[in-house]
Amino acid sequence: MITIDVPTRSRQELVAITDRVQAAVTELALEEGAVLVYSPHTTCAVTINEGADPDVRGDVSRFLGRLVPRDEPDFRHAEGNSDAHVLMSLVGPSELVPVEGGRLRLGRWQTLFLTEFDGPRPRRLWITGLSAQR
Amino acid sequence: MITIDVPTRSRQELVAITDRVQAAVTELALEEGAVLVYSPHTTCAVTINEGADPDVRGDVSRFLGRLVPRDEPDFRHAEGNSDAHVLMSLVGPSELVPVEGGRLRLGRWQTLFLTEFDGPRPRRLWITGLSAQR
Amino acid sequence: MITIDVPTRSRQELVAITDRVQAAVTELALEEGAVLVYSPHTTCAVTINEGADPDVRGDVSRFLGRLVPRDEPDFRHAEGNSDAHVLMSLVGPSELVPVEGGRLRLGRWQTLFLTEFDGPRPRRLWITGLSAQR
Repeated sequence: MITIDVPTRSRQELVAITDRVQAAVTELALEEGAVLVYSPHTTCAVTINEGADPDVRGDVSRFLGRLVPRDEPDFRHAEGNSDAHVLMSLVGPSELVPVEGGRLRLGRWQTLFLTEFDGPRPRRLWITGLSAQR
Repeated sequence: MITIDVPTRSRQELVAITDRVQAAVTELALEEGAVLVYSPHTTCAVTINEGADPDVRGDVSRFLGRLVPRDEPDFRHAEGNSDAHVLMSLVGPSELVPVEGGRLRLGRWQTLFLTEFDGPRPRRLWITGLSAQR
Repeated sequence: MITIDVPTRSRQELVAITDRVQAAVTELALEEGAVLVYSPHTTCAVTINEGADPDVRGDVSRFLGRLVPRDEPDFRHAEGNSDAHVLMSLVGPSELVPVEGGRLRLGRWQTLFLTEFDGPRPRRLWITGLSAQR
């Protein structure tokens, strides 16, 4: 398992991580199988979406922020970030991406993102390689 | 890795894919472990839900369409399909399903679906077998 | 694959399952890789979130219940639990968690939960160990 550090700069944003995950796949010497990109936090997530147009990641992040309002009157958790905990369960803490010939097999328009819901914070991701069956 | 083609017919719908994924598991000769059903696109997703009553897939697809309106005034992405990008991050690009004795181990009422959010389009899925531990 | 039983007590709640999943990892003798925690049902899900403050799981469960109302007039499925089916597709039927040295590698504040959307019911989870690459 390899750890990568991903600092975030806003309360809610998508941060592209494909290059760092590919570097971890290379360091793991994973040739065929899949790579688990796992967040050990409880107020951010990992997702895949279009990376070409920055408006896509902005639209996704802003919509999610409106879908789960920070000041929802029914929230009881004293830290005031229950919106981020809800979004973590909706988006999920990990993605599993195929690997072939030592390379991430993402679709042509796909980029891996850390999805920050309660930043800015120093975040880290845990990268685990899994074997293809033989 | 095996590629399967899944054409879709509506803008938003769930298309059952269990039979084609089982055929890929057989072709991969995967006996024990899990199969990764991965969408390389950015405006559709993969999910599991009840397949017996067609009203379930209709209710799920229509509710998701209302949850994220296509004409949300705050969306900036010029292609006009930011709703589909949001739904892709909420539902997710893949499912990982246990395999035993060469068979998908889905629950009795579970069906695998491609979840289309911006069709109709020709879609494809990438099927990767992962080893159980020994 | 190991099956664990998880009875639920309310219509909608998060039930902590970390200890039982760790026991399954030990029983599987999985040392390095990842463990797939898979729900074979269609009206509950598996998630990871903060376990320290019980208000977090309450806030998450109640917000999801409001996000998808049970009495949505457009729902057609005759069993009256389409809200639970929608939530199953949003939260997802499984989590994949890294394992090192025979131990689940969850983050410091993370707990594994079964997310019940249509209980109380007897539920079960299927636990599969996957090999790290060598």
